[in-house]
Amino acid sequence: MTGVDEYEIIDAISRRVGRLPGGYLQIGDDVAMIPVGGTRLVAKCDMLVARTDVPPGMSWRQAARKAVAMCVSDFAAKGVKPDSFMVSLALRRGTDEKSVRELASGFRDASKEWEVRLVGGDTNEADDLIIDCVMLGFGGDVVRRDSAVEGELVVTTGGFGATSAGLRILMEGAKSAPAFRRRALRSVYRPNPNLSLGLRFSSLLSSSMDSSDGLAISLHTIAGTSRVGIVLESLPEDSGLQRFASINGYEAADLVLYGGEEYTIVGTLKSERLEEARRVAESEGGSLRVIGRTTGERGSVSLADGREVERRGWVHLR
Amino acid sequence: MTGVDEYEIIDAISRRVGRLPGGYLQIGDDVAMIPVGGTRLVAKCDMLVARTDVPPGMSWRQAARKAVAMCVSDFAAKGVKPDSFMVSLALRRGTDEKSVRELASGFRDASKEWEVRLVGGDTNEADDLIIDCVMLGFGGDVVRRDSAVEGELVVTTGGFGATSAGLRILMEGAKSAPAFRRRALRSVYRPNPNLSLGLRFSSLLSSSMDSSDGLAISLHTIAGTSRVGIVLESLPEDSGLQRFASINGYEAADLVLYGGEEYTIVGTLKSERLEEARRVAESEGGSLRVIGRTTGERGSVSLADGREVERRGWVHLR
Repeated sequence: MTGVDEYEIIDAISRRVGRLPGGYLQIGDDVAMIPVGGTRLVAKCDMLVARTDVPPGMSWRQAARKAVAMCVSDFAAKGVKPDSFMVSLALRRGTDEKSVRELASGFRDASKEWEVRLVGGDTNEADDLIIDCVMLGFGGDVVRRDSAVEGELVVTTGGFGATSAGLRILMEGAKSAPAFRRRALRSVYRPNPNLSLGLRFSSLLSSSMDSSDGLAISLHTIAGTSRVGIVLESLPEDSGLQRFASINGYEAADLVLYGGEEYTIVGTLKSERLEEARRVAESEGGSLRVIGRTTGERGSVSLADGREVERRGWVHLR
Repeated sequence: MTGVDEYEIIDAISRRVGRLPGGYLQIGDDVAMIPVGGTRLVAKCDMLVARTDVPPGMSWRQAARKAVAMCVSDFAAKGVKPDSFMVSLALRRGTDEKSVRELASGFRDASKEWEVRLVGGDTNEADDLIIDCVMLGFGGDVVRRDSAVEGELVVTTGGFGATSAGLRILMEGAKSAPAFRRRALRSVYRPNPNLSLGLRFSSLLSSSMDSSDGLAISLHTIAGTSRVGIVLESLPEDSGLQRFASINGYEAADLVLYGGEEYTIVGTLKSERLEEARRVAESEGGSLRVIGRTTGERGSVSLADGREVERRGWVHLR
């Protein structure tokens, strides 16, 4: 018996609690949305569990910052400015003061970096470090996952594969050139969602999601929920990845598609918006990559040569 | 080395991130409060960890409901109607579908019971069942912990000790009369914050907090943050507790003061509001108990005979 995975759990729970009324975003997007007065509350919770989310060598300060970054990435993909965050912590009994100060420093780092205020939280005991970050913001609307249409360009705002390479360097002893190693480890220890880019992109994208579950899962999710197909015409590879893959006998395409932990945006846009999107991305220090297009083949995600992109990547419990 | 406890962690983190601007509630109350438009977002996260919060014999359906009840209790104490909740889950790998359906049923139970909508969540893998419930609501203001003044009455909206007795029945094999046993176990398995009472009480109380850390901790927290003293003149004992305690050789006062897990309100009010508060409590199926009064002796919590009430109870990590 293998047990249920993340997507099956979300499905089982949302079926049982039923659909939400108008003004709310249905369960299953990157964030929740709740109508209030003339605006909408956008809320997100994302749990970091040390044994699956904190790789070897990551400090508690970095782990705390990462827990917040995971939520910031969702807000960036939805085009909503976060206001505040809360943290529910679980720590091992006997955790010392120095470790707690490290966590506090990581929350302060995140707070300054993305201009979000820590407004509350909860503290508990468990066998592992667990940080559930809850992020809160307000906005008129969000860019959804399920709103791509046929005939759009599929884009990302950053490269893929370096984080996965970094994890293989740390966990499997993979070899690499020093400069690539530095970049790869930095992407592991300091995930870097580009919030200001996301905020400016929201008016340009037709659909959008945070890519942290991996490129393949993100494309499948957009295709599945939007009822379109996606043909992936070029892989948004991080530079240096081909060389790293060939030194170590990996397939670069596997690292790009199925690695996960890249905190960038995967989305779709109408071709007439491409030039503006490119300008915005460049002015925000990002790079817009056109990686494919949407088709009428509902739910299908394939490469240009017709091979299917598998629906796998970073799915918890699978 | 004993490590830091819950209160030291909150202190270390809030010192490092600094004070919040006007309109926000400072870290350390039952809930967070964030100004938005003409209203305020009230938010709370509360993490249930099975190994400390799920006693023997509690089903997953009850555990899921309890995770939501823990947040509802805080909203009741603050006098704010919750709108929605999210759940960050961590499950063991291999968790079966039936268990997930049980969780979903528990969330649905809570959703109906307190008219709150499940709007989102997150799913992860850990070694234990963990449910971080995030509750969201909107309101003009909240009743704070730090706003008691000298010369007020100290009140609770329910009895204390039965939950602690129930836990001793389950974990230490304590003996009891069948009727008391049923009530005690029910209070363990179905914590029952009285939300409608809390909402009507908010205009009557000067200060208020959720009592789930235990009566002694709650009184110390109100006294400490409000800079008043509290003299506890009568213990809000659940009925049947004396007999249960004497059969098993416990001190009833210990169960009342230091047991914890009672999801009721501890607060203060001006004596001229007592009669109205009593009427409201009765009409909402609660019972208002006057248990003492506030004094000018900053931070002191004592019994009528002068003995000190210790600052201990259900503090995580202690």
